[in-house]
Amino acid sequence: MRVRHKPWAKEKIDQYPQYVVANPEQYKGKWHEVFGNNHPLHIEVGTGKGQFMTEMAKANPGINYMGIELYDSVIITALDRLIEADLPNLRLLNVNANDLAKYFAKNDVDQVYLNFSDPWPKGRHEKRRLTYKDFLKLYEEIMVDGGEIHFKTDNQGLFEYSLMSFSKYGLLLKYVSLDFHNSEYEGNIMTEYEEKFSEKGHRIYRCEVKYPN
Amino acid sequence: MRVRHKPWAKEKIDQYPQYVVANPEQYKGKWHEVFGNNHPLHIEVGTGKGQFMTEMAKANPGINYMGIELYDSVIITALDRLIEADLPNLRLLNVNANDLAKYFAKNDVDQVYLNFSDPWPKGRHEKRRLTYKDFLKLYEEIMVDGGEIHFKTDNQGLFEYSLMSFSKYGLLLKYVSLDFHNSEYEGNIMTEYEEKFSEKGHRIYRCEVKYPN
Repeated sequence: MRVRHKPWAKEKIDQYPQYVVANPEQYKGKWHEVFGNNHPLHIEVGTGKGQFMTEMAKANPGINYMGIELYDSVIITALDRLIEADLPNLRLLNVNANDLAKYFAKNDVDQVYLNFSDPWPKGRHEKRRLTYKDFLKLYEEIMVDGGEIHFKTDNQGLFEYSLMSFSKYGLLLKYVSLDFHNSEYEGNIMTEYEEKFSEKGHRIYRCEVKYPN
Repeated sequence: MRVRHKPWAKEKIDQYPQYVVANPEQYKGKWHEVFGNNHPLHIEVGTGKGQFMTEMAKANPGINYMGIELYDSVIITALDRLIEADLPNLRLLNVNANDLAKYFAKNDVDQVYLNFSDPWPKGRHEKRRLTYKDFLKLYEEIMVDGGEIHFKTDNQGLFEYSLMSFSKYGLLLKYVSLDFHNSEYEGNIMTEYEEKFSEKGHRIYRCEVKYPN
C-alpha cells in the first residue's frame, strides 16, 4: 500500500495504549488478561485501516480480535474507528508481522486473517508475501493445532501462489471460491480494498486452509 | 456431454482393434507389448472426440498415449482422427472409467489427463465427478508413485470442488492457473471444448497435482 508519512501518528498511537497495545511482549502467552476473558483470538495480519476487524468485532462479540499493522500512518485510521466504536473485543498492534512470535506464544491465536495482502509480484520478493512458507511456519508457531487461515484477495497471481504454498506446506484446503462475491456465502464483511476493487469489477478470491490437528 | 446414438458406431469400432484396443484386460500389467516399447504411458479419462490426445501424441513421440471414452458414438470421431494420423503411440479404449483397475495394474500409467470433465453440479451426483475421492484412489491404484493428474476445465464449480478434493486426498498442488489462456504457459494443446468455450470468453482453469512419491 502507498503510505503517506504522518509525523503526528506515532504520538496519537501512544495516547491510546488501551487500543493500540503498548509493550505487547508482556502479554505473550496471556492475552486473555488484556481481554478479561478466554474467548478465541482471531488476528488479522496487515489490518490496514481496520474496517474488517472493526465490523467483525461488532458482529461477533464472543470472539476477540486483534488487528496487526506495521504502518503507523495507516493504523491510526483503524484507531479512529476503534475510538468511535469502543469495542471491548478488539485491540490493535503496531508491529511487524515478521516479529509475531515475539508477541504471541503457541496456542495464543485461534485463527489468522489475511485480506488483500501486498502481492509482491516479483519473484525476488517472494519471501515478503504473507503466504510464503516462513510466514506459514510463524502462524503455526502462535496458533492452536488445527488453526485456520482465512484469505481473501483480488490478486490472481497471489492467490495462485498461495494455493500452491499452502499445499506444499501441508495445509488442508477446506474452502475455496474463485468468484467470492458471486458465491452462496452469506455474511461477508468487506475490507476497504475489497469494496474498492469489487466496484471496479475485479473478481474476489477467497479460501480457508487448516493446519493439522 | 450430449450423446447422439449412432447404431453403426460399435461395428466400426470392432473393425479397428489395432486402434480401439479389443479385450484390453489381456494387457493389464503389460501395455508395453501393445506399444512395443517402455515409454511412459499417459491416459486421458474422458477423451471425447480425441483432439487433445491426437495432438499430444503427434507432439510427443516419446510418450505413449491412451484415450479412454465410454460413449461409442463419441469415440468414433477420435477413431477417425487416429485412422487419419496413424500414430504408433496412441491407442483408444472404449470402456467405463469406473473399471480402470480391470485394465491397468499398479505402475502401468505415468500420468492422468482430465479435460473438461462433466461437472455433475448436483450434490447428489458428486460421486460421478472424475475428481471425486474414489476416482483419485482408482488413479493411484494404476499409476506410478509420484504420478500426476493434469486437469483443465472452464467450470468454476468443478475446479473449486476438485482443488478441495485433491487437497483432502493429500495430493500436492504443483501448478495452478486461474486464467490459463492468459498465463505464461507455452505449448498448450486445446481440446474441442476448450476451443469452443474460450472463444465464448470463458476462463480456462488448469492445475497439476502429484501423488506422494
